[in-house]
Amino acid sequence: MFQFTGFPLHTYGFSMQYMRFMSDSMLDCFRLEYDEIKKEMPDVPVTTNLMGFYKNLDYQKWARYMDFVSWDSYPMPQDTPAESALNHDLMRGVGAQNSFVLMEQTPSVTNWHPYNRLKRPGEMRLLSLQAAAHGADAIQFFQIRRTVGACEKFHGAVIDHAGRDDTRVFREVAKLGEELEALGDVFLEGRTPSETAILFDWDNWWALEYSAGPSIRMKYLDAVKDYYAPLHGLNIPVDIIGTEDDLSPYKVVFAPLLYMVKTGYDEKIRRFVADGGTFVTTYFSGIVDEHDLVHPGGYPGTLKDILGVWVEEQDALPEGEQNAFVYKGCEYPADMLCDIMHLEGAQCVSGYLRDFYKETPVITVNAYGKGKAWYVGTRSSRDFYREFAGDIVSSAGVKGVLETPEGVEACVRRGKNGTVLFLLNHNTEEAEVILGTGCKELPGGKEYGCGDSVVLMPKDVKVFLCC
Amino acid sequence: MFQFTGFPLHTYGFSMQYMRFMSDSMLDCFRLEYDEIKKEMPDVPVTTNLMGFYKNLDYQKWARYMDFVSWDSYPMPQDTPAESALNHDLMRGVGAQNSFVLMEQTPSVTNWHPYNRLKRPGEMRLLSLQAAAHGADAIQFFQIRRTVGACEKFHGAVIDHAGRDDTRVFREVAKLGEELEALGDVFLEGRTPSETAILFDWDNWWALEYSAGPSIRMKYLDAVKDYYAPLHGLNIPVDIIGTEDDLSPYKVVFAPLLYMVKTGYDEKIRRFVADGGTFVTTYFSGIVDEHDLVHPGGYPGTLKDILGVWVEEQDALPEGEQNAFVYKGCEYPADMLCDIMHLEGAQCVSGYLRDFYKETPVITVNAYGKGKAWYVGTRSSRDFYREFAGDIVSSAGVKGVLETPEGVEACVRRGKNGTVLFLLNHNTEEAEVILGTGCKELPGGKEYGCGDSVVLMPKDVKVFLCC
Amino acid sequence: MFQFTGFPLHTYGFSMQYMRFMSDSMLDCFRLEYDEIKKEMPDVPVTTNLMGFYKNLDYQKWARYMDFVSWDSYPMPQDTPAESALNHDLMRGVGAQNSFVLMEQTPSVTNWHPYNRLKRPGEMRLLSLQAAAHGADAIQFFQIRRTVGACEKFHGAVIDHAGRDDTRVFREVAKLGEELEALGDVFLEGRTPSETAILFDWDNWWALEYSAGPSIRMKYLDAVKDYYAPLHGLNIPVDIIGTEDDLSPYKVVFAPLLYMVKTGYDEKIRRFVADGGTFVTTYFSGIVDEHDLVHPGGYPGTLKDILGVWVEEQDALPEGEQNAFVYKGCEYPADMLCDIMHLEGAQCVSGYLRDFYKETPVITVNAYGKGKAWYVGTRSSRDFYREFAGDIVSSAGVKGVLETPEGVEACVRRGKNGTVLFLLNHNTEEAEVILGTGCKELPGGKEYGCGDSVVLMPKDVKVFLCC
Repeated sequence: MFQFTGFPLHTYGFSMQYMRFMSDSMLDCFRLEYDEIKKEMPDVPVTTNLMGFYKNLDYQKWARYMDFVSWDSYPMPQDTPAESALNHDLMRGVGAQNSFVLMEQTPSVTNWHPYNRLKRPGEMRLLSLQAAAHGADAIQFFQIRRTVGACEKFHGAVIDHAGRDDTRVFREVAKLGEELEALGDVFLEGRTPSETAILFDWDNWWALEYSAGPSIRMKYLDAVKDYYAPLHGLNIPVDIIGTEDDLSPYKVVFAPLLYMVKTGYDEKIRRFVADGGTFVTTYFSGIVDEHDLVHPGGYPGTLKDILGVWVEEQDALPEGEQNAFVYKGCEYPADMLCDIMHLEGAQCVSGYLRDFYKETPVITVNAYGKGKAWYVGTRSSRDFYREFAGDIVSSAGVKGVLETPEGVEACVRRGKNGTVLFLLNHNTEEAEVILGTGCKELPGGKEYGCGDSVVLMPKDVKVFLCC
Repeated sequence: MFQFTGFPLHTYGFSMQYMRFMSDSMLDCFRLEYDEIKKEMPDVPVTTNLMGFYKNLDYQKWARYMDFVSWDSYPMPQDTPAESALNHDLMRGVGAQNSFVLMEQTPSVTNWHPYNRLKRPGEMRLLSLQAAAHGADAIQFFQIRRTVGACEKFHGAVIDHAGRDDTRVFREVAKLGEELEALGDVFLEGRTPSETAILFDWDNWWALEYSAGPSIRMKYLDAVKDYYAPLHGLNIPVDIIGTEDDLSPYKVVFAPLLYMVKTGYDEKIRRFVADGGTFVTTYFSGIVDEHDLVHPGGYPGTLKDILGVWVEEQDALPEGEQNAFVYKGCEYPADMLCDIMHLEGAQCVSGYLRDFYKETPVITVNAYGKGKAWYVGTRSSRDFYREFAGDIVSSAGVKGVLETPEGVEACVRRGKNGTVLFLLNHNTEEAEVILGTGCKELPGGKEYGCGDSVVLMPKDVKVFLCC
Repeated sequence: MFQFTGFPLHTYGFSMQYMRFMSDSMLDCFRLEYDEIKKEMPDVPVTTNLMGFYKNLDYQKWARYMDFVSWDSYPMPQDTPAESALNHDLMRGVGAQNSFVLMEQTPSVTNWHPYNRLKRPGEMRLLSLQAAAHGADAIQFFQIRRTVGACEKFHGAVIDHAGRDDTRVFREVAKLGEELEALGDVFLEGRTPSETAILFDWDNWWALEYSAGPSIRMKYLDAVKDYYAPLHGLNIPVDIIGTEDDLSPYKVVFAPLLYMVKTGYDEKIRRFVADGGTFVTTYFSGIVDEHDLVHPGGYPGTLKDILGVWVEEQDALPEGEQNAFVYKGCEYPADMLCDIMHLEGAQCVSGYLRDFYKETPVITVNAYGKGKAWYVGTRSSRDFYREFAGDIVSSAGVKGVLETPEGVEACVRRGKNGTVLFLLNHNTEEAEVILGTGCKELPGGKEYGCGDSVVLMPKDVKVFLCC
């Protein structure tokens, strides 16, 4: 017996296949256009506007057929710095961690948000340099001049309907241009030195969210953000990788809500952990294969031996209802979905505090070869993820770029000119940062020693060349 | 002048006719299949999965063409014991009060609820035996084995994807099987000895809810539950009957929100009351005939002489606004719809406390022949219905099966083996019940005397054969 | 880059043109019917039921082709007296300020509101005479008799399904009939002596609300009500005029949210202000022409020289976020949209209190010729509009009909029989009014002197012939 929960293809269970077909068909169309252009202009690089976490198109497939990755960044006013950073890291990731082009952003407002709030003075520069800090080699705008008609006539532009160059927006864009010119090529083609990766897979996204059950509250992107946000807060460089990407460059791989484990991908993880890597996955993982067919023999399917657990049941909690567990002396909520599991070789790190599955494991770790495989059988709070993710990376010997106060982001890019450090103050108050190495501020060249402090005005950004 | 309130057919007023046509067309389709099967296998009983209060199909018509009634019971986690009991009683009722088959239920979870909460240990057994207590002769499950693909792959099953028999769910199902085997045929074909009936009519459901006005808050099922819930709380056996069913077996008939009074049905009620029956109806009743055409001459139409009132106007109150009345010394709310009426032979039991119709009647009773006809001209609170429904049945000499604490349900089935008593503890705490007759616990045969007390563990059920 | 905000034609920006086409096409259809009728019955006046602020049809165009204006008034229970008054004034306005016919109203309830609350005793009379007070020469009802079937069977009627004349509703209608008969033709064809106008333009409504950005909270009708409500509270007669109407009869013209300034309309305003008129407009005005194409050269486009300001940016505030300003010593909120502007000849009356545009102008006034042009760059609170609109009209020498307590409305109509004064008490308590002139109560003829007091019962209306 079934009932409909929105997406019609639920009823047939072909949703993921449908999404894959649509994405591939659009890609075929792009490739036809690509080939036609190349026939006439073989040397012209060809790209198209990607849009970050855009559910309809599998950009990890698309990017393979683009000469370089470019994308449109339109964060909502309420988006956190971590959320816009995550989008940049994804876009860098689909392009094999090469630098990308910020094809579009608005200098001031969009016209399609519900409330089109102005970017405050400095915000456009801050967001532009955040893109650069995460891998952008070019910063562009939509649009140079506001159209007088049609659907985007109220979308922000460098030159407004007034047609004047003495506007706040024009001045800020011009000033950024001068700044980038002064910085020259110092960070161009610089790479992000990540020892930590988070797996993101479009097929998994589709298959998970277009399956009926166990909970409508379960969203793939939420699970990814649960782990990305604390790493961002610790200024730990993160690569967002796909299932085709190599795991060997990394010390730690997070694969939150890895519902779909494609044939052979378990082997990739097995090798990674056996060779000493730290692997972390969560509730409702290892369930299906690439055809959205369940791995028989119990959850988490082909990951069972790596994780050393058998998940017998999953309890979906309604909004407002929670279980709980203790981690390192503090109680944290177990929310949304509670996996009920048996140890099959793993150690129990924490158990549930309530209900008929009280004292059964919720967090486990399994020693596998030279490495460790963690399973977190529920969704918890920001405080838990900050604590837990921090422990995982530090025990794997991964360090952040720099310790910074809340709301101040530190990123590095390494290239032929050396290591460039970006300090971005997302706060509306000034902030002080203690440098971990000597460096030279760019442009200008003011010298700083290791241990020196740098003061950042609200929304300010400073760029340094490390010695 | 009109405006659209959702259902397009409002605009033409043909909604009820449309629903009736659709239901009949589907039924024709079922009957074609039925006949084909019978041609090949004349002795095989044929049924189909009904679904309780399923608005699209008039099961009271359907059941006439089925060899026996079977249905799928998937209560939502938040449903009350009374609500699942009401569904069983409806399904028994469409089958002329004969016992039915519980064709489907989940042993653990569904996959199409928003939050697919696990049935806690004991809950599956409790719900299974509640079905039996209300007339089920067979308890079945969907599904024996979880499919690996398609839209129901996460629907609960007796055998999970793990394919093991050492799961909680498998054990609970196996245990229930043993228990039913031990009970044998003791309650099979047993009847529910009801002296109270509630009228439920699909045509009325459609016509009422697809007419525009007087209030979008007015829902037929809510009105039925208003009266069913307190009777269930008093362990009073209730038959849910349709307009084709005979009223003479009953002492009390509730017909809440009987908007549609079909030609001749008033005569049925008239005879029932004249012969000494107690009839209760409510606001917005007696309005239209079977064609959804208003009975001229004032509301409640052809019921006017039986009820002895004329309803001049109906005042629909917006959310949050209430009038009030006093019943037996306590004040209760008058909510949603307030009928403004004149006495035409009836006695006023209570009047409104406020507004321009202050002191006009809201509850009336009319002595008609040997019986009584009650009219409750508004919607009130659970407290009122508990009080009022209790008074109605007791004054009609109808008694409950047993007095039980809140949350403990007592049902009986009478058959060739005598009277079987079911005690069901829906609470999460243990409960004590004092028996009203001597009886023997099944299976096992432990003897109890009248006045003995029985202790039920949380979610526990006990079955007895009464002496 | 764009995203969809509901109305599909956003995407193309042709929405306004589409609405105009649909309205004109429907009008063509009406005119074909009109002509056919006139062929057979040249002397029969022809009209059709208008519906107040009905977005789909541009009644200002329609009325030109109707022999007289008639409309259906179905206020929602929660509508304020000002809101129903505004609708009457609009309907009078589309008919060149001639008197109109109230074609339809319900004597009791509708059946298409979510909660069809009864009109309380006296409410039907009050709303009927409010229509007369605002220009109605006939008061009619839908429907004389309740139909027994179809979608309006529960819509109120003079004769209910009971078919009786002893109902509350029948009595109230009959009584109103007698009263109108007694009043005779005293106010028929009487005109409303307005020195104040509010501009309302369907093209502006469509173009504004079907453009994407800057805020989904921005609604034309809200802006119109912001200014109408306080004028209504001061009993100031207001004409609702269209862009075709002459401005010279008025001392003050409010044009709230005048997003669209059609070619030549700026000249009309220019002349009006130059000749000594007071003009008031608001945020997001002067943006586009009649083709929904932006006036280049900066906002407010062709109104810049009249208003003496240049609006550089607009900041759309999310729900719950506000700026503020001080007017005459009191602080008021700046909500929804904040225009950021430069003075180009205007004086700054008030500036913002917060954010990066702190101290920039929010309210300005520009002396232009013999008149004044005001710009209010944000949306504020009822308290502000009461204060501000009162100052605007009094400084222009416009007086209200009479000073009345809150909830008591005073209107006049001037005709061949002299000036008729209507006093309408919308309160549920009695109210006292001090007369400003001597007058004779109608019907009856009771004499009152200037300064005499009149007591109005709850929901009561009194009509006077002024001496």
